[in-house]
Amino acid sequence: MAVSLRDLQPAQLPAASPVSPDKGLSGAGHLPRVVIVGAGFGGLAAATGLKGAAVQVTVIDRRNYHLFQPLLYQVATAALSPADIAQPIRSILKRQQNATVLLGRVTGIDTAARAVLIPGPDPRIERRVPYDYLIVATGARHAYFGHDEWEPFAPGLKKIEDATDVRRRIPLAFEQAESAAEPTERQALLTFVIVGGGPTGVELAGAIAELAGKALVAEFRAIDPREARVILVEAGPRLLPAFPERLSTIARRALERLGVEVRLGAAVTACDAGGAAIGAERLPSRCIIWAAGVAASPAGKWLSAERDRAGRVKVGPDLSVPGHPEIFVIGDSALATDARGNPLPGIAPAAKQAGQYVARLIRARLAGRKAPPPFRYRHLGNLATIGRKSAVADFGRLRLSGRLAWLLWGLVHIYFLIGFRNRLVVSLDWLWAYVTFQRGARLITGPIE
Amino acid sequence: MAVSLRDLQPAQLPAASPVSPDKGLSGAGHLPRVVIVGAGFGGLAAATGLKGAAVQVTVIDRRNYHLFQPLLYQVATAALSPADIAQPIRSILKRQQNATVLLGRVTGIDTAARAVLIPGPDPRIERRVPYDYLIVATGARHAYFGHDEWEPFAPGLKKIEDATDVRRRIPLAFEQAESAAEPTERQALLTFVIVGGGPTGVELAGAIAELAGKALVAEFRAIDPREARVILVEAGPRLLPAFPERLSTIARRALERLGVEVRLGAAVTACDAGGAAIGAERLPSRCIIWAAGVAASPAGKWLSAERDRAGRVKVGPDLSVPGHPEIFVIGDSALATDARGNPLPGIAPAAKQAGQYVARLIRARLAGRKAPPPFRYRHLGNLATIGRKSAVADFGRLRLSGRLAWLLWGLVHIYFLIGFRNRLVVSLDWLWAYVTFQRGARLITGPIE
Repeated sequence: MAVSLRDLQPAQLPAASPVSPDKGLSGAGHLPRVVIVGAGFGGLAAATGLKGAAVQVTVIDRRNYHLFQPLLYQVATAALSPADIAQPIRSILKRQQNATVLLGRVTGIDTAARAVLIPGPDPRIERRVPYDYLIVATGARHAYFGHDEWEPFAPGLKKIEDATDVRRRIPLAFEQAESAAEPTERQALLTFVIVGGGPTGVELAGAIAELAGKALVAEFRAIDPREARVILVEAGPRLLPAFPERLSTIARRALERLGVEVRLGAAVTACDAGGAAIGAERLPSRCIIWAAGVAASPAGKWLSAERDRAGRVKVGPDLSVPGHPEIFVIGDSALATDARGNPLPGIAPAAKQAGQYVARLIRARLAGRKAPPPFRYRHLGNLATIGRKSAVADFGRLRLSGRLAWLLWGLVHIYFLIGFRNRLVVSLDWLWAYVTFQRGARLITGPIE
Repeated sequence: MAVSLRDLQPAQLPAASPVSPDKGLSGAGHLPRVVIVGAGFGGLAAATGLKGAAVQVTVIDRRNYHLFQPLLYQVATAALSPADIAQPIRSILKRQQNATVLLGRVTGIDTAARAVLIPGPDPRIERRVPYDYLIVATGARHAYFGHDEWEPFAPGLKKIEDATDVRRRIPLAFEQAESAAEPTERQALLTFVIVGGGPTGVELAGAIAELAGKALVAEFRAIDPREARVILVEAGPRLLPAFPERLSTIARRALERLGVEVRLGAAVTACDAGGAAIGAERLPSRCIIWAAGVAASPAGKWLSAERDRAGRVKVGPDLSVPGHPEIFVIGDSALATDARGNPLPGIAPAAKQAGQYVARLIRARLAGRKAPPPFRYRHLGNLATIGRKSAVADFGRLRLSGRLAWLLWGLVHIYFLIGFRNRLVVSLDWLWAYVTFQRGARLITGPIE
């Protein structure tokens, strides 16, 4: 580990001001410092939950934007542009006077000295951001079940760069098929394999099938895009395992109507430049997309905390790390359980509620009030869309499918997008796509060979 | 050069159909083949000018989209998304039944055998696209006056990737300044040097000054974005040399009001990681943008044709290459002259008119009609914008500046954008930026270190 040459003093103090050596809880002439690592749904909810509190909030993220991940697949399928679903963190927290934003890649946490470690532009100099309270909300990335060598052939969808990579691969496959000489090569180029039958996989499969069946028709001369095969592979017995069984069946039928081949109980056994394999069966394909498996960020390692196989940190009923009442882990990086002991789902509302809870808890502690009761997740429902006019929605007693669910899906996603401009642009883009069947962002950027 | 293993048969024939060995002009059971390399303003105008003609048109481009380059700087300054100013070539030519689009990087032209060479996915196999008429419209890239080693430190603006690279560099400089320890380092990070006082340089300088002076204010805690220096360097005696002198002065004053430092008669003598140098003066900067110098694409080399120092092919009065009446070079890759012998400007209207002219000429030749009179460029005017409310416009006798010119600039650029969706989205984005001072696409994608 590099030598720490200086401390970084967050929030409102000019950068050149002298740094207090004190790292204890409050008392030393500064406000309690709350450091939040990660500006996803959980981290931002915690930050905004502390608005107006007598604390210094520092939000650290390695990106300058908050990403609305539930719509990332729409960037991958060229329906939206990256900027439509991302908002600069600074701009979100602009009016929150007690919040500072720091762009940086956290590499470790010194829990003894209570500081977050960020390498500086000069790698020999390590920057340290001291905290009194730490909220870790670093999210998750996709996992390949021990087969990380599959990643180059089957990219996942967690970052904007992933989405623009997939957005490049899909039309590039059609372009290459148009000038392919061999029928077998052409067929492989027109075969799209999506691994994972959760909401992302279902939404991607539907969107690609529609792209091939509608948007691209009449644009090619040598191939017919409608010949494209879209194969959705799910290891479990049904799609959308978090939904009621009836909605899974509806989703499968809706996808099949769009021409998607749904393979259930089918585990992928290989991914390489030639395609994917399901058991002994080879699926020649030049475009595999990974929508299965989730592994938590390395936050658990930084904290040397107990974690499950996916790397999620086991947290207590108040979301703090056992033995560290000043450290909280929320969202996809945490393994929190509900009253019955079931792990919470890795979805945006769960992360948001956790962030809000931790903000309330810190406020209570600082005010010397009784701590709030243990965190309780309120499940609001599940939503997944299947192409252009259909969706499934599960709100406990209320279960919807078809057009009404689709409309609801659209409204909910627009409502939760941050930034009025994004809401407006996404609404217009969807309306446009609905009326014309066209997608606005069909660009192949980056290398084409 | 690789061995040609097969010919590629364009337009309407299925890819697997047998290929005619014939390469002569018409007569052999196929329609005359017009191959257009490059789908910029010139190439597209030529393609659409041949709509309905009894020819097979093949448009080859290494990108799948037509790019509206005049607005590229707005992607660089986060006002627009790449997809807003790009449109898939296939989608533009979808309804033109005699046109085929081929994605590929041309590496040479066999003028004796009349074929365009494209390496296939397997580099040992070269694909050949035979032509009866060839239109080369491959545009230009920026030139560093023999100092190509400056490019990594001073990226130019020709491709979408250039623009997203600059879009990354600008906010990243502010982010790094926010956490910079040394005042000198902070100042270098907040110094933006733009080289070249043509329309792109003027528009970029104005946009960056506005970004710093308006959009980013209140988002940072340690720095004040208004402290940023924006320096526009022009080697000639005035900005916008293609405009009347009075408008150059107006542009300079408008930029200075925005806080831009305009350096005229100042030649850049070095660009490196530390900044730029003007003569003996060092300008420490972490963000230099190159908006000067233009070099034609390598098309002249492919044709072994006579060319000027910038690599532009000298063409005859009908835009054909001397000795090759079947080959035309148009747009920025050509050195065409007007009636007085002055070279045509490297702007979109000149390329478009040339494309339309060549299409008319080919139609006349095929119909056995008299060739049209030599190409005459009709200058429509010059427009450049300076920030949010000001622009200069020169239409010969009509010269405008200020708000009216700015409105005109906006209307003209929206009118010429291809695709109704793009027009709508760009209009809304501009309206949004005008009302709120915010820019919608402030994303730092790609590596942040």
